[in-house]
Amino acid sequence: MSAATPGGPAAAPRKRGRPARGSAEDGPGARERILTSARTEFAERGYDKASVRAIARGAEVDPALVHHYFGTKEQVFGAAIESAFAPAFVVPRMFEDSRPEELGEKIVRAFFHIWEDPRTRDPMLAVLRSAVNNEKAAQVFRRLLQRNLLSRAAAVLDVPDAELRVELAASQMVGAALVRYVIGMEPIASEPLDQLAARLAPAVQQHLTGSPAPGAGAAAGGTAGS
Amino acid sequence: MSAATPGGPAAAPRKRGRPARGSAEDGPGARERILTSARTEFAERGYDKASVRAIARGAEVDPALVHHYFGTKEQVFGAAIESAFAPAFVVPRMFEDSRPEELGEKIVRAFFHIWEDPRTRDPMLAVLRSAVNNEKAAQVFRRLLQRNLLSRAAAVLDVPDAELRVELAASQMVGAALVRYVIGMEPIASEPLDQLAARLAPAVQQHLTGSPAPGAGAAAGGTAGS
Repeated sequence: MSAATPGGPAAAPRKRGRPARGSAEDGPGARERILTSARTEFAERGYDKASVRAIARGAEVDPALVHHYFGTKEQVFGAAIESAFAPAFVVPRMFEDSRPEELGEKIVRAFFHIWEDPRTRDPMLAVLRSAVNNEKAAQVFRRLLQRNLLSRAAAVLDVPDAELRVELAASQMVGAALVRYVIGMEPIASEPLDQLAARLAPAVQQHLTGSPAPGAGAAAGGTAGS
Repeated sequence: MSAATPGGPAAAPRKRGRPARGSAEDGPGARERILTSARTEFAERGYDKASVRAIARGAEVDPALVHHYFGTKEQVFGAAIESAFAPAFVVPRMFEDSRPEELGEKIVRAFFHIWEDPRTRDPMLAVLRSAVNNEKAAQVFRRLLQRNLLSRAAAVLDVPDAELRVELAASQMVGAALVRYVIGMEPIASEPLDQLAARLAPAVQQHLTGSPAPGAGAAAGGTAGS
């Protein structure tokens, strides 16, 4: 995200980015408030409808300060989802710290742990909604996942098709999250998390370490599926 | 949903609902054109932004005729996705006609056959985008899937947790479709269909006929381990 102005304390504030009302709305707290507000705004309204003005209002800062810290709306989005996904970045470490055969269960539990908590779920919802509806948002999302999750996890898995495997596992979890939290479809929506995890873990494990079905080209033969 | 007027064929056409230009835009062709236009409109703009006016324009009919045939926007949406999903309604029949162990492969192939063809993909995208962003659309979607796919497929599977199994299988396929067609994330986006199906089939099969993971936690009662 080279385009994103590193807007931390290091960056010198531009004049027009300074709020007129004084230092109360600036400072380190403002940056966090803007990110929080951005996550809410993107979650509730999606990328297309979200506005920097509303994000600023939610953070009780001037819109110019949002631009000052983060740049364009696309860049605000990038920063918001990067902070939203911070909990998920533990996953690559799991690949390092786990035996291969326990990865399915561990990753599924970590993933749904994030989704079950509204504070971390809403940002994920924001990302999902926006990426589904807007190509720019999808692009930001792809870059973020690629850099922080897929490549890192795949590097640890250390098989030629590692990225495909990790992504298939992700597709299973994202699909289940979509059905459970977004579409709200029963019975998955109300399934106790333990039971749901017990169902998903073998499928995720299959993707990470199992064999593909033998009948890749031909019609359905014996889909033994180890 | 009390606002939804049941506007099907049973409803007497309102005078202002009749097109002025004569019978060319009415008749059986108009209904089909409206559905086609509605699928495009919902696909491109999502439920929230789609308008009956634009649907009418795309079908070259008067907006009143859309209301006459289908009722409210919500009902137009219901009719559009029902027609969009018609190809998917072969799936329950697969449950009847297949040996259990070949279901994974067969269903995955049928599902992606629908998604690979832009004519059937666009309507599915419409549904997915809309259901992700709008609770009313999600509700229509839930009802449709419940009635036409889940219950019917589950009835054939004939195990106590059949609906959960069918829905988990669906969640895997929807998740993969999301990654491949909506987010466009590599390597899944470019994976040849045969290979992708060979990867997904064992996971789907696992959901339909496999055992849950043993480590379901204390709460997992009936989840007999493999």
